[in-house]
Order: sequence, then C-alpha cells, then structure tokens
Amino acid sequence: MRDLKAWAEIVNRRLVEIPAVIPKGRYAIGEMPWLLSQSMRYSLSAGGKRLRPSMLLAAVELLGGDVEYALDYACAVEMIHTYSLIHDDLPGMDNDTLRRGRPTNHVVFGEGQAILAGDGLLNCAFETMLAAAVKKPERALDALLAIREIATGAGVTGMIAGQVMDLYCERNQSQDIRALEYIQRNKTACMFIYPLRAAARLCCADEKSLDALTRYGSAFGLLFQATDDLLDVTGDQENMGKTLGKDTESGKLTCVSAYGIEGTRALVKKLHSEAIEALNIFGEKAAFFAGLVNDMVNREK
Amino acid sequence: MRDLKAWAEIVNRRLVEIPAVIPKGRYAIGEMPWLLSQSMRYSLSAGGKRLRPSMLLAAVELLGGDVEYALDYACAVEMIHTYSLIHDDLPGMDNDTLRRGRPTNHVVFGEGQAILAGDGLLNCAFETMLAAAVKKPERALDALLAIREIATGAGVTGMIAGQVMDLYCERNQSQDIRALEYIQRNKTACMFIYPLRAAARLCCADEKSLDALTRYGSAFGLLFQATDDLLDVTGDQENMGKTLGKDTESGKLTCVSAYGIEGTRALVKKLHSEAIEALNIFGEKAAFFAGLVNDMVNREK
Repeated sequence: MRDLKAWAEIVNRRLVEIPAVIPKGRYAIGEMPWLLSQSMRYSLSAGGKRLRPSMLLAAVELLGGDVEYALDYACAVEMIHTYSLIHDDLPGMDNDTLRRGRPTNHVVFGEGQAILAGDGLLNCAFETMLAAAVKKPERALDALLAIREIATGAGVTGMIAGQVMDLYCERNQSQDIRALEYIQRNKTACMFIYPLRAAARLCCADEKSLDALTRYGSAFGLLFQATDDLLDVTGDQENMGKTLGKDTESGKLTCVSAYGIEGTRALVKKLHSEAIEALNIFGEKAAFFAGLVNDMVNREK
Repeated sequence: MRDLKAWAEIVNRRLVEIPAVIPKGRYAIGEMPWLLSQSMRYSLSAGGKRLRPSMLLAAVELLGGDVEYALDYACAVEMIHTYSLIHDDLPGMDNDTLRRGRPTNHVVFGEGQAILAGDGLLNCAFETMLAAAVKKPERALDALLAIREIATGAGVTGMIAGQVMDLYCERNQSQDIRALEYIQRNKTACMFIYPLRAAARLCCADEKSLDALTRYGSAFGLLFQATDDLLDVTGDQENMGKTLGKDTESGKLTCVSAYGIEGTRALVKKLHSEAIEALNIFGEKAAFFAGLVNDMVNREK
C-alpha cells in the first residue's frame, strides 16, 4: 500500500508531463505563452502535500479502479486547489506575500498575470480532465459524472461559495458561527468531498461507497481546517511555510475564535471519530485513509 | 429565421433560469451566497449583444440540431465571456471603471468579490454544461467533445493565452505585429471559433461543416476585433457604452496602431470575404451568419 508521499510523487511526475502546461513556441497558434506556463508552474510546483489528488487516487485504488486513468483527474484537482491559493493570496483578497515558504504568485509575476495564472489553472483543470475523458469514449458517461463532481466541489455552491462567505465575514468582522460552519464546509471540505466522489464515479462505485466517501471527505475536510486553525495559534512558522498568527491578529473567524483552543481540540476528536466510522464498510483496505486522519490529529504543518 | 435579437432574447431568458445562479438561502449547505449570485448576475445582465451564444445556437439550427438542448451550452459561453470581462477590467489588469455603460463589477462589489464573481462564472459555465450533459446519457460522448471545444477556446492555448500576451505587450509597450496577430486570434477569435465548433459537436456534424464553421469563426472574430479597434478611434462613446480612445492614449497595440486606419479598413474587407466564402457549403441556410458579417462591417457599437 502506497503512503501519501508515494502518491504525491506519482502526482508530481504527471503534473509536469501534462501537455497543456508545456509551451512550445512563442507566438505559435494553439500554443501557450511561456509566461503563462511559467506562472502556472511556479505555483503548481511550490511543493504542497498533494493531499487532494493523492486521496482521489487512493480512493480509486480502494474501489478497485484504474489508477492510471484517474491520474489526470487527480492532477486537475491539484490545479484547482492551486488556482484557489493564487487568487486567495491576491492583494484584493487576503494580500498574502508568503505561501508554501515562497513569495506568492503575484509578488513574482505581478497582480494581472497572477489573476490569469489562476484562471489558466482552473480552465486547464477542465481541459485536462476532458482530454483524458475523450480517450475512453466507452466510458464517456462516467467521465461526465466524475468531472461534474469536481466542478460542483470547486464551484458556486462549493469552494467558491465558501470563499465568498469568508471574504464577506472578514470584511465585516463577523463572528457568526453559522457562517463559520458554512465557510469551512464549502471553502475547505468540498475540495476533499467531491474529488473522493469523483473517484467513486470513475469506478462506477455503488451508492454505499459513494456515501461513505462523502462522509469521510466531509469529516476529513473539517478536521483539516480545525487543525489548520489550531496551528495558526500553536504552530511553528518555519514548519508551516506561511505567515502564522495572522488570523488572530486580523480578528478572523476561525474554529479557535469560535470555540477556543480546548473547544477546537474537542471538535478535532469528534471529527476524527466520524472519519474513522465512515471507513467501516471498507475494512482493512481503507488503512491509508485511517492513517491520514490519525496523522492529521498530530500534524505539525 | 431568427435574427440576433431573437436569439439573444432566448439566451437572456435561460440565463436567469439556470438553477446554479439562483440562491435559495443564506447559509444553506449546497447553496450559493446571495452576494455571489448578485455579483455574477450584475455582470451577466449588463446587456451585451449575446453574440457568442447566439452564434452557437444559430449554428445548431443551421446544422439541424436540437436548439433547446444546446441552450445551456450557449449560456455557458456567455458566462465565460462575462467572466473574462470582469477579470479584464480589474485594477491589476486594464483598470476599467465603465463597461456596457455601467460601473464595472469591482467598482460595485469590490476587487476581491469581483475576482470571485469571475471565478464563479467560469466554474459555473462548466457546472451548467455538465448538468445539461448528464441529462442525456446516450449522448455523453458528444457532450464531452462539445464541452472540450469550449474549454479549449477559453483556455490556456486560447482566450487566456491571448489575455496573457495582451497584458505582457501592454506592460512592455510592444508593437510587435506577430504578437498582435497572436492576441487577436487567441483573445478574441477563439471565443467565436470554439463555440461554433461546440455546436458542430452537439450536432455530430461532418468534418467539412466543422472546418467551415472554424474558418468562419476565425474570420468573424478577427473582423470583430478589427472593427472594435477602428471604433475605439472613430466611434461614439455613448453608443459604445465604454470609455473610448483609451487604446490610442495608452499606446496599446491594436490593428489601427499596426496597420493604420486605411490598412485596418482593407483588413476588414479581406476578413469579410473570407467569412462569406467559408459559408458557401451551407448555401441559403447560412443567411444569419452572412448577415452578421455584413452588419459587422457597418457596426457602430
């Protein structure tokens, strides 16, 4: 069984191979400008943990599906995650200058180009999935269903909805706990839930598996955010590779501001149990996913 | 035969009906924040000519396809066009405050929300097409091919590539004519070419029709841009609903700066002939498309 690092390596190898992110000529029609490729790759290669695509691939393996076929979908998920970070860091949004230990995209390429790099990654995610999908015409419907799951997770009732509410609450110094729950589910959990659902679609999994992965993804995503909020207060800046303490300083609505440190630790425990419980139907085969939530409880970055 | 206004009305009616752009509750899980819907609709309803979606629908009719089924694809094309305008107008890009006669999105909703409204429209375009596609499982492959055409036109070797080159040339005061051709083909023409190709895919059209529509879309798009460049110099600001003379003032690379006013008029004539010639194989049935290029030559807005 592969661990997170092994899955991440598979994702990284494929990410640099995807034709759409390799430019060939400067003005050649049908080819990408060097600057666009550079700015997209800069953030794609900034060395994240590749959690979301790894989980998609591990779910495909868990369900007995074709990992090779799913690889481009996994890369698309990472592109979407990366675009959301680039846009989130922009001066008009969070105005962050450090991400994964490196200057943010707009610091290096300028604000306009960073907006376009983000747009490019979002669009390229769909281009990548569609290119993979048309190669297996006999599985066109599964592909449509899988791409749709990812579009939903990333979309206007998913991640983007969460971003909008997050920005609104920050601008208005809201401490509304219902808004917090909405933000954490949509902004963070959706991009775990829906890639897992996409894996189920690619494998033509039954409703029970789809439901179990949905519940696991939700608990995992919320757990990820809760531990992230804890680390912003208790973590080590060098380990995390980003500016810490910013949330508290800016009066941002987080698990810690809403429930306190002890309350957040209790929430972490509860979400951990929910995640483990959701895995029951898979038995031993789900060890990778059980390991992930166990590690999450003890994470330092 | 419907004219542009009649097609645009059909598009406008459907655009306000699309479930994904109608929010239902404030914090309801799986629903869109009111603010996101507002900001997306603000720009969607700013009253453009709906050229791109109308051309897609007219092409479906020309090819004997199902206009009703194609309608959501047409709306998706308009969403993509609208997102590109929102992002293009941002302070980090063109910094425009007036568009279609109204304050631009970021002037009304703030920069952060305008970025997210654009992201939302791009993602929602795919959500909308995918939702339409899964309703006709027996046509899943045609749907994949059609969505892929639109993704390609909007993407990192299409519209976004053109935007990147445009921004680069503006920042560097480039007057390179090869760059101009690259920008006008990618930034403008691609979002005419590929929606027409998507129409052909939805209708399972033969290669000859696909090729003719591609050539027409290319000539039309370049014609549209050339006349737009001319109008920036010779047009009437009230008619156009946007700030004119800006391109010349900022030393921007345009057809007029590259070829002069007379040279651009000659180009317009040449592109008009190419567009008409591409329509030959369709005969009388292509009257709508012939009318479009005839009108384009005499356009005032």
